[in-house]
Amino acid sequence: MSSPFWSPALAQLEPYVPGEQPRAQRLIKLNTNENPYPPSPQALAALSDPALHRALRRYPDPESSELCSVIAAQHNVATNQVFVGNGSDEVLAHTFYSFFRRDQPLLFPDITYSFYPVYCQLYDIDFRTPALGADFSISVQDYAGEAAGVILPNPNAPTGRQLPLEDIEQLLRLQPERVVAVDEAYIDFGGDSAVCLVDRHPNLLVIRTLSKSHALAGLRLGYAVGQAHLIEGLQRTKNSFNSYPVDGVAQRVGAAAIADHRWLEENCAKVIATRDSVTEALTALDFEVVPSKANFVLARPGTMEAGQLYTELRRRGILVRHFNRARINQYLRISIGTDTEMAQLLEACREIIATHQNSTVR
Amino acid sequence: MSSPFWSPALAQLEPYVPGEQPRAQRLIKLNTNENPYPPSPQALAALSDPALHRALRRYPDPESSELCSVIAAQHNVATNQVFVGNGSDEVLAHTFYSFFRRDQPLLFPDITYSFYPVYCQLYDIDFRTPALGADFSISVQDYAGEAAGVILPNPNAPTGRQLPLEDIEQLLRLQPERVVAVDEAYIDFGGDSAVCLVDRHPNLLVIRTLSKSHALAGLRLGYAVGQAHLIEGLQRTKNSFNSYPVDGVAQRVGAAAIADHRWLEENCAKVIATRDSVTEALTALDFEVVPSKANFVLARPGTMEAGQLYTELRRRGILVRHFNRARINQYLRISIGTDTEMAQLLEACREIIATHQNSTVR
Repeated sequence: MSSPFWSPALAQLEPYVPGEQPRAQRLIKLNTNENPYPPSPQALAALSDPALHRALRRYPDPESSELCSVIAAQHNVATNQVFVGNGSDEVLAHTFYSFFRRDQPLLFPDITYSFYPVYCQLYDIDFRTPALGADFSISVQDYAGEAAGVILPNPNAPTGRQLPLEDIEQLLRLQPERVVAVDEAYIDFGGDSAVCLVDRHPNLLVIRTLSKSHALAGLRLGYAVGQAHLIEGLQRTKNSFNSYPVDGVAQRVGAAAIADHRWLEENCAKVIATRDSVTEALTALDFEVVPSKANFVLARPGTMEAGQLYTELRRRGILVRHFNRARINQYLRISIGTDTEMAQLLEACREIIATHQNSTVR
Repeated sequence: MSSPFWSPALAQLEPYVPGEQPRAQRLIKLNTNENPYPPSPQALAALSDPALHRALRRYPDPESSELCSVIAAQHNVATNQVFVGNGSDEVLAHTFYSFFRRDQPLLFPDITYSFYPVYCQLYDIDFRTPALGADFSISVQDYAGEAAGVILPNPNAPTGRQLPLEDIEQLLRLQPERVVAVDEAYIDFGGDSAVCLVDRHPNLLVIRTLSKSHALAGLRLGYAVGQAHLIEGLQRTKNSFNSYPVDGVAQRVGAAAIADHRWLEENCAKVIATRDSVTEALTALDFEVVPSKANFVLARPGTMEAGQLYTELRRRGILVRHFNRARINQYLRISIGTDTEMAQLLEACREIIATHQNSTVR
């Protein structure tokens, strides 16, 4: 359906479709890479602070200064090297507008976060998508030449593969006049962050979220770290769109969550341990598992169609993600849940695969 | 400062400048039209709900369905006639993109919310600004002819003047093929809402906020009411920008706030009573006060420069708003605070004006 009241630009948009958020509470939900554990108790305690309640009638700090300071301290950068937004999706949208609206195409991998082409459409940005290798690795030299910039998640999604920091540095040198945005949504699960490169590279912007490793997807907080001239650009775009994108509750709770380093470390260690044991178990079940530094694995069942396995898992109340897209339609992306949830997943896979093999043999 | 990394569009933006949010707690803050009273206790109670805390690790409902239902019930419309966003500023931004990016100019009054021309710049929209009358009234016939659409606040800001519903209907008939957006940020303080016209007019979009009459500026919640085809347009733009703009906390607290009708009624009655008595008192002090249906008054001191009075009030710890713009630079916009705060404002005005008169006589 369209409407004559829609602007021509709106009429042409094909919006992003997020992973399903089912209403049924009984599902084992392994489809949108949420953290299986509750957030830091210090973060939750902030919600009941009477001072926060008293402040709600007032506009929040439009610059989220306190939250920016906590993030800056965490990464050992200056406060004017941090920009916060209403989820990393908003930070990404402002990044596309601020740096990638140019006459050349933006470059990102052919298999990656599927919101990127949607932002391009929203802001009328041309793009080119160099193909990942057969093992889903990125070849940095594909990102040379005339371009509006480069964006890629590291680790990449939905593959989980990490690009080493040397490759990121080479990328930065290949595009010295353009912004290279590294979307580190999953970096805390064992990856090497590019934040340490920010001071040496004026074209590097690192984007983070509190949705995954901080277990705060419901709070909508993301941020960017880069040199001050890039952060100022994001602020100007933000101040032309919505002066107060981060509400007072999110500013307070987010600051408390980031300050609780110990919680983060312990949480990530748990998720990593589960991921590594699940990888082993899936491999033993004949899956081909892409090496992951994220809180999910991309895995290809050895003996049955991925789409069929997805459907059978769903029938048993286990929700994973199946992308009906070229090159990855024989894979499932499985978020890392608790050990109990993953044991249930593995047991279900075992049964489904056995049943399938029996029916095939017959 | 600009940067070679900025896109050409970004380099040309002149961002909106929100009213000051001073750090000093002792100021009597009458500059950004916040509610002087705390929000509904039911809204605040929702913040401490353990179910809300448990849900925070998960993404929120991208459609904010429950909140939309509560808003729909409140206005007696269908749920698919409601769109919610991260503050009405975000709803406005999506409105500009969705409906006003056309070859003709958008129309809005010359004296109005100063974010409108900023959105136009952000999305490359041409605009024309018919002049308000000498008494700051809107002449509807100025909004006829080729246009991308019409937007105006009702009551208008920063004048506080209301446009009667008959005039809104005439506007809707003058632009039957274009969206007419009525920004009702201040409508609860005694104005007549256009929501009752939505079912008869496919081109009407009414925009609301919880920042003023619900005393939740810190929570960032706004919404739009219109026919389903307009709401679907806003959703498509939203889903191309940020799938989850309203966090789980805001969805819950906002729903509780809107459901508490009785709190809203009592709160607005208090603010209206204070506004009316302040209007009388200012008039007695020789101010010319524009008739207001909002939670602020625009008032012109009779015997001294508005800018000078602003500075003197600030020196005494009272912050009001002075716009250094043609036609209104001899006025102050004064938000309605508590009766105690307004008594202090009036007392300060009395003293400053008396001192000024004495020094002028000498």
